[in-house]
Amino acid sequence: MAAFKTITIDGKLIEEVKRFADQGNRQGLKKLIDDMRAADLADLIEHLDPEERLFIFKLLEPDGAGDVLVEIETPVQERILKDLDNQAITEIVQGLDSDDAADLVGDLPDDRAREIIERVGDEVSGELEKLLPYPEDTAGGIMALEFVAVKADTSVKDAIDTIREKREEVENLYYIWVVDDLGKLVGVISLKDLVLEPTDRKISDIMNPEVISVYVDTDQEEVAHLVTKYDLVAIPVVGNDHRLVGRITHDDIIDVIKEEADEDISLMAGVIDQGIAEESTLKLLRARLPWLVAGLFGEILAAVVISQFESSLKKIIALSFFIPVIMAMGGSTGNQAATIVVRGLATGDISLVKIGRRLWVEMRVALMNGLICGILLGLVVGFWLSDYELGLIVALALVLIIFNAGLIGSAVPFALKKLNFDPALGTGPFVATSNDILGILIYLGLVTIYLRVT
Amino acid sequence: MAAFKTITIDGKLIEEVKRFADQGNRQGLKKLIDDMRAADLADLIEHLDPEERLFIFKLLEPDGAGDVLVEIETPVQERILKDLDNQAITEIVQGLDSDDAADLVGDLPDDRAREIIERVGDEVSGELEKLLPYPEDTAGGIMALEFVAVKADTSVKDAIDTIREKREEVENLYYIWVVDDLGKLVGVISLKDLVLEPTDRKISDIMNPEVISVYVDTDQEEVAHLVTKYDLVAIPVVGNDHRLVGRITHDDIIDVIKEEADEDISLMAGVIDQGIAEESTLKLLRARLPWLVAGLFGEILAAVVISQFESSLKKIIALSFFIPVIMAMGGSTGNQAATIVVRGLATGDISLVKIGRRLWVEMRVALMNGLICGILLGLVVGFWLSDYELGLIVALALVLIIFNAGLIGSAVPFALKKLNFDPALGTGPFVATSNDILGILIYLGLVTIYLRVT
Repeated sequence: MAAFKTITIDGKLIEEVKRFADQGNRQGLKKLIDDMRAADLADLIEHLDPEERLFIFKLLEPDGAGDVLVEIETPVQERILKDLDNQAITEIVQGLDSDDAADLVGDLPDDRAREIIERVGDEVSGELEKLLPYPEDTAGGIMALEFVAVKADTSVKDAIDTIREKREEVENLYYIWVVDDLGKLVGVISLKDLVLEPTDRKISDIMNPEVISVYVDTDQEEVAHLVTKYDLVAIPVVGNDHRLVGRITHDDIIDVIKEEADEDISLMAGVIDQGIAEESTLKLLRARLPWLVAGLFGEILAAVVISQFESSLKKIIALSFFIPVIMAMGGSTGNQAATIVVRGLATGDISLVKIGRRLWVEMRVALMNGLICGILLGLVVGFWLSDYELGLIVALALVLIIFNAGLIGSAVPFALKKLNFDPALGTGPFVATSNDILGILIYLGLVTIYLRVT
Repeated sequence: MAAFKTITIDGKLIEEVKRFADQGNRQGLKKLIDDMRAADLADLIEHLDPEERLFIFKLLEPDGAGDVLVEIETPVQERILKDLDNQAITEIVQGLDSDDAADLVGDLPDDRAREIIERVGDEVSGELEKLLPYPEDTAGGIMALEFVAVKADTSVKDAIDTIREKREEVENLYYIWVVDDLGKLVGVISLKDLVLEPTDRKISDIMNPEVISVYVDTDQEEVAHLVTKYDLVAIPVVGNDHRLVGRITHDDIIDVIKEEADEDISLMAGVIDQGIAEESTLKLLRARLPWLVAGLFGEILAAVVISQFESSLKKIIALSFFIPVIMAMGGSTGNQAATIVVRGLATGDISLVKIGRRLWVEMRVALMNGLICGILLGLVVGFWLSDYELGLIVALALVLIIFNAGLIGSAVPFALKKLNFDPALGTGPFVATSNDILGILIYLGLVTIYLRVT
């Protein structure tokens, strides 16, 4: 391990770097960034303007530049790649681990990607061609080809020699995987156990034959689930013939967990497929406008519903005052219930096996919340309009609305999951709008019946 | 490593286990669960009724029972602990790693905790007394005391001997930490590098002196941030005198990342401090009711605002039809912007240094969204009421409302972060309600001005 210092990227440092870059002071800048860790340097670069970024980037050795580049957030990374020529990118790709190289080349426009693959040399292009066909969100799409595997009938000494051969190639090593003559995965041994065994001991005697692995086409969410559940540091990836082909390490798993949480959170907020750090107006519009427009037309339906009760509204204009209360209460309740179920389904804390129990819990809570909020609103309406009978009707309406919203909010994500849709859609405009429409229908419907009866 | 099998917990297996438990068939059940991994067994137990859980739990050896117990979700775990006697818990605690033992004892009622600490024996009670004082969400609160440290002037052979001594105690080992004579942390060496060096090599010659560490009182979110940023598998924890006192491993970090995401997501949905899997009605009410009631009174303010425009509403009753559209558009826009900023601040993808740029991005997007939605709504209103001038006014109102909501939604989380509040509060009832009130004010205000002018 090289001795890099860890530093904090603050306003002062950014100013200093900007000044050096703007002055074109290579020496000063080089001295400043020379012993910085790649992750810190990436952080720093994200805070600079495009020309400053490029200036600092060109000071780095190809190997170092690659390590920094993969740590930079996607929109900035794309911009830098656009500004670098193919030769520079080729040198960077040659120095990267296979998984990072494949990610980088995979994100390039097709013609650039092809040219880079032609330039990188046989070994690297072979790796790229192995990895690029796998979809991004599968085990194959996130695995690296750098791992240490030994045959079952070799000795501890042979295994250590294999590690030595791969010392540079496999940077972080925690497990040695064991394969048979066909390359099929048959066992695992931790580095800790390996170092404590006599060097002439046979691997097959000390390995654990119950090794947890995933297939190349396993969904990355499932991979993350397994690694988390069994507290693994790395998981081997096998082909359909059970031959060992790659490995996925803990840092990739953390990326998957964050990415999936980002996706869930964004989708719940009605944002489709937006990178958190995205700054392009067009991409943001594409991510957010569709659901706004869907919501707009949904709420125009709500307007049509209200218009059906025009005569009641004319009789008591104050009924319109409480439309926001009705909407907000139904909306919040539905969102609370849906969010918990969506998140629970994503993390596995709530499972499909427990649907009945969960719905029962949500119904109880919604009923209690409805009773309390209903009584409060009923008192306010009764006092305000000096009509406690109408207050009672509004209270009753709110109980029904909150109960209904709680039920819809928790049931829809389960239904979506069963139908193999993303449950996060359940907190979107569909549920929100149907809650609004049903809420208004219950509220104005009950009040209208009351007005006709009295 | 023992050879446990990995199995899927499905309805069929659950039924079989339930039948054995209900029949009191110890032999059959023991055979079924004997070679299951702790995490799978925990999964299975979560699906059983309380008496069945206890029956299966009492079949396990104390060591195995502890490994299973720590994998079980909190509400179920609490219930099981309530049903076990102090002797059983004492035996379980004795077999756990120090961090798990402290978590378990820390969650018990005070008097039970005290009795367990008296029973577990000096070594374990000493560890508990070291760990229990640290707040749950700090490095001290999540660290374990099991680690391998060697002095800088020892040899590789000595280091391997130390690992051998701690073989059982330190289950997963990736780094050896190096300390000076006072116990202060001075370096780190990976197990991989250690196994490749000649056994007589001095540790000080091969260690990396730039070791990343955290203090006992570092916030767990900061710990997770460092581990993720620098792709570490474990991070050493030091006291304020820089003496090495514990270690935090990747699996704990994944738990922190999930926990923080759970918290953010729940808070954004207006749910305060609810465990995702929580099923107690009272706890759920406490988590959800406060914000519903806050929202209720906020929206009663909105009702007061609408009542001020009673004469406009009386003139054109149809104005009330569009209140849901106005509210939903402002609400969704604010929520989209706030969610992205809150999540970005939590993951570090958006930083306080970039506030200006982010606000500018959000303003551009809100303006575009507002224009498009405004034109659509204006056309609908114009056509419906056969009054295209009024349609134009409503369109203008919606542009302003969406622009304003986008600005509030993105600015409030930044402001909260600067003031050291949790930005996730920014998607709560405060922003939602102020967006509703401002939206209605803009809408009815503009329309009223128009009605007076014409």
